[in-house]
Amino acid sequence: MNYRMIFYTTGKILQVNSLLLMLPAVVSLIYRESCVFSFLLAAVISVTAGFILSLIFKPKNHLIYAKEGFVIVSLTWILLSLIGALPFVLSREIPFFFDAFFETVSGFTTTGASILTDVEKLSNGLLFWRSFTHWIGGMGVLVFVMAFIPNVSDRSIHLMRAEMPGPIVGKLVPRIRDTAKILYIIYIVLTLVEVVMLCAGGMSVFESLLHSFGTAGTGGFGIKADSIGGYSPYIQWVIAIFMLIFGVNFNLYYLILIRRFRSAIKSSELWAYICIVLFSVSAISFNIYPMYKNIEEALRQAAFQVSSIITTTGYATTDFNNWPVLSKGILMLLMISGGCAGSTAGGFKISRIVILFKMIRKEIRRLIHPHSVDTVKFEGKALDNQTLYGVGAYLAMYSICALSIFLLLCIEPFDIETTLTAMLACFNNVGPGLGAVGPASSFADFSAFSKLILSFAMLLGRLEIFPLIIALNPSTWKKR
Amino acid sequence: MNYRMIFYTTGKILQVNSLLLMLPAVVSLIYRESCVFSFLLAAVISVTAGFILSLIFKPKNHLIYAKEGFVIVSLTWILLSLIGALPFVLSREIPFFFDAFFETVSGFTTTGASILTDVEKLSNGLLFWRSFTHWIGGMGVLVFVMAFIPNVSDRSIHLMRAEMPGPIVGKLVPRIRDTAKILYIIYIVLTLVEVVMLCAGGMSVFESLLHSFGTAGTGGFGIKADSIGGYSPYIQWVIAIFMLIFGVNFNLYYLILIRRFRSAIKSSELWAYICIVLFSVSAISFNIYPMYKNIEEALRQAAFQVSSIITTTGYATTDFNNWPVLSKGILMLLMISGGCAGSTAGGFKISRIVILFKMIRKEIRRLIHPHSVDTVKFEGKALDNQTLYGVGAYLAMYSICALSIFLLLCIEPFDIETTLTAMLACFNNVGPGLGAVGPASSFADFSAFSKLILSFAMLLGRLEIFPLIIALNPSTWKKR
Repeated sequence: MNYRMIFYTTGKILQVNSLLLMLPAVVSLIYRESCVFSFLLAAVISVTAGFILSLIFKPKNHLIYAKEGFVIVSLTWILLSLIGALPFVLSREIPFFFDAFFETVSGFTTTGASILTDVEKLSNGLLFWRSFTHWIGGMGVLVFVMAFIPNVSDRSIHLMRAEMPGPIVGKLVPRIRDTAKILYIIYIVLTLVEVVMLCAGGMSVFESLLHSFGTAGTGGFGIKADSIGGYSPYIQWVIAIFMLIFGVNFNLYYLILIRRFRSAIKSSELWAYICIVLFSVSAISFNIYPMYKNIEEALRQAAFQVSSIITTTGYATTDFNNWPVLSKGILMLLMISGGCAGSTAGGFKISRIVILFKMIRKEIRRLIHPHSVDTVKFEGKALDNQTLYGVGAYLAMYSICALSIFLLLCIEPFDIETTLTAMLACFNNVGPGLGAVGPASSFADFSAFSKLILSFAMLLGRLEIFPLIIALNPSTWKKR
Repeated sequence: MNYRMIFYTTGKILQVNSLLLMLPAVVSLIYRESCVFSFLLAAVISVTAGFILSLIFKPKNHLIYAKEGFVIVSLTWILLSLIGALPFVLSREIPFFFDAFFETVSGFTTTGASILTDVEKLSNGLLFWRSFTHWIGGMGVLVFVMAFIPNVSDRSIHLMRAEMPGPIVGKLVPRIRDTAKILYIIYIVLTLVEVVMLCAGGMSVFESLLHSFGTAGTGGFGIKADSIGGYSPYIQWVIAIFMLIFGVNFNLYYLILIRRFRSAIKSSELWAYICIVLFSVSAISFNIYPMYKNIEEALRQAAFQVSSIITTTGYATTDFNNWPVLSKGILMLLMISGGCAGSTAGGFKISRIVILFKMIRKEIRRLIHPHSVDTVKFEGKALDNQTLYGVGAYLAMYSICALSIFLLLCIEPFDIETTLTAMLACFNNVGPGLGAVGPASSFADFSAFSKLILSFAMLLGRLEIFPLIIALNPSTWKKR
């Protein structure tokens, strides 16, 4: 293992992180808030640590392989969360470190689960930082570094594979650096369009920016006690639609950019995503109609919540914990499915579900005709056995992790519904669950132990399990 | 597809079924109950239908393949449940057909979920029939026919594969008929040992027999309102231990019989099973200790419930719905795991879990070293890719079925805990769940629609999904 390269790269990223911390510092300065010093101190710590790491571990060779990629990504995400928690603690706005760590992990992993009982008391600088972590974490910290910082690594495909979600991570263009740049440019443009559309609805620039960060990263940290509930129907529709847009595989936007419309429109993942959304919105609208004044409101509430949960954003316009069981059941399943691969959404990913259905069809054929040879096609390409095996193994790992986290949370004295959906909400990077962790509540009442478990669950979910498991496995660290 | 052979075999089995119905008829006669006529009428219907089927569809050739095997098994299980429900309806002891069908499916699939609110009102004949369906369903209707009725099919391995649970179904001895016979003889002997041990504890012969049927098939229909709660600690320990015994792969008992002790003791599935049981009993004993008088009672309650749930039997000695969340969480996970493959227990099966863990290890190695070639070994043998693929596809199918059944049950006005565990309890053939379907309650309050869904879930769980899905797929029935 190339230890030097691991710590060198991590050091470089910490230096970049200190630059990111300057943005909320500027915001604090504008609003003349005292938390500006917390950000500056955190930035100094980050740049110093980063400088020391990259100086001590100056690499002899720059070669990294898959293993190093997983370790770098895991280490980076943990370190950024630790340092990102400092401003909350230093400013005493979230005095306990476990709480601040939970909140920061929730930010970077675009979960949006909060331990704050009154978010409106937070200063603007910290509100900005919270939402900004969503934005950076959504498309990826390392993808960001790859796109904009020169010469971080020659073999960054391994970093990209470790950080980007989905069963098949490929390059859009031959150079990985250009791929990262294209993705971020699409991301920035879409975010800006949302900012403009929210401003057009009468939202202030600051609030538009923060809500767009939360939408783009499919994060979901609100800045009001009732999340998006107090805003106008126009604002709610805009956010609902943009959440759905950010839940689509970004490769499709690239295909549209290079005018390959037919390839984009033929994506089976896209169609599965659209069908699931349409079915869920219809079923929930019908189910909750008696609770609301008119069809528009029922439809809007259903559409907003479905869009928010399937993309694992977690904004809410109503306390869906009070909805009938059928609607809650549908939302629970959407938490698991998540959005499309290659988007900023979390969850199991629609593409994997589509592939699993095709694997089942193949297995049925094999059971009937034991000697049949059958290929599984996805998005027009035949999938090799390794990819299929990988999807199966991912489902196994996903199930085992989900059930283990659930069991560890059972130590808390909550009911089954709360415990189960707290796990689903964190592991799938959704944010709010049901019961005592519903959209009108917070994760404040969990013990420090459970908050640590849930923080780990969020990281597992965002990095799609394997990178973190590999990084934490002692045998990975053995010298060859 | 060999239609003639399908209906011919089904007809033969219906004739055998009429003989099985004579047993409860005899019991009714002994107790001078009027339900004897219901059994006789059901037997006449069964034998007539069977006779007509096997006369009309006299096969031209006796060749059957995997496809025919799946269809015969599915058709048989549905028909036997329909006819088995008749005595309940005809005797008016369960007047509604959907209820009677649910109860009979619950019997044959060894689930033990009941719609009866007062089981003690049932006549002895029907109590016997209910428990006897457990016993027959546990080892398998077709395996029974193969073992004891001559010349049903020349190629019965396909029937055996479709009916026996587990990822790998093999023959113990070269002749399939002898394999079936050996399995049933072990099954009968173990059942008789339990009857004797229960009688030794002061239980009447009738009750011992019924409880042994329920234990052997890992069914769990009780004959008292408090299931096993009212019996002595001795009885409770005996049943707890026998449930565990019937949750072990029967191949191991065969290995012991032929004195291959070392092969038996080396089974990794057995050790995983033992470890899970020991861990669960320890954790739950510790967790519930404050609720009970002394260590023996806490340990016995924990051991009984763990044994009952992991083997998917469903007997209860206490209302574990009142236990703390941690204990309830552990029981929920045990419902999913189920017992060993090749036993009478339901659930996902321990062997599949062991294989999944090994698949994950292989996938991690592949992610680190993309060109590594790695084999997965299980019980001393290397598993081929098709078996691994099959286990992955089974997990996918299992998850999709579980979530779909859950969603369909959400239409009922129950809470999430009840709805979820009702699904788990039926789909995994356990019996009682939590909440409104806890061990002190029944499934009586569900609508006819949900009872039908749950009956289907029980059949899916018992036949391990694929046979039923293949039989219900219209393309299976197309002429070549």
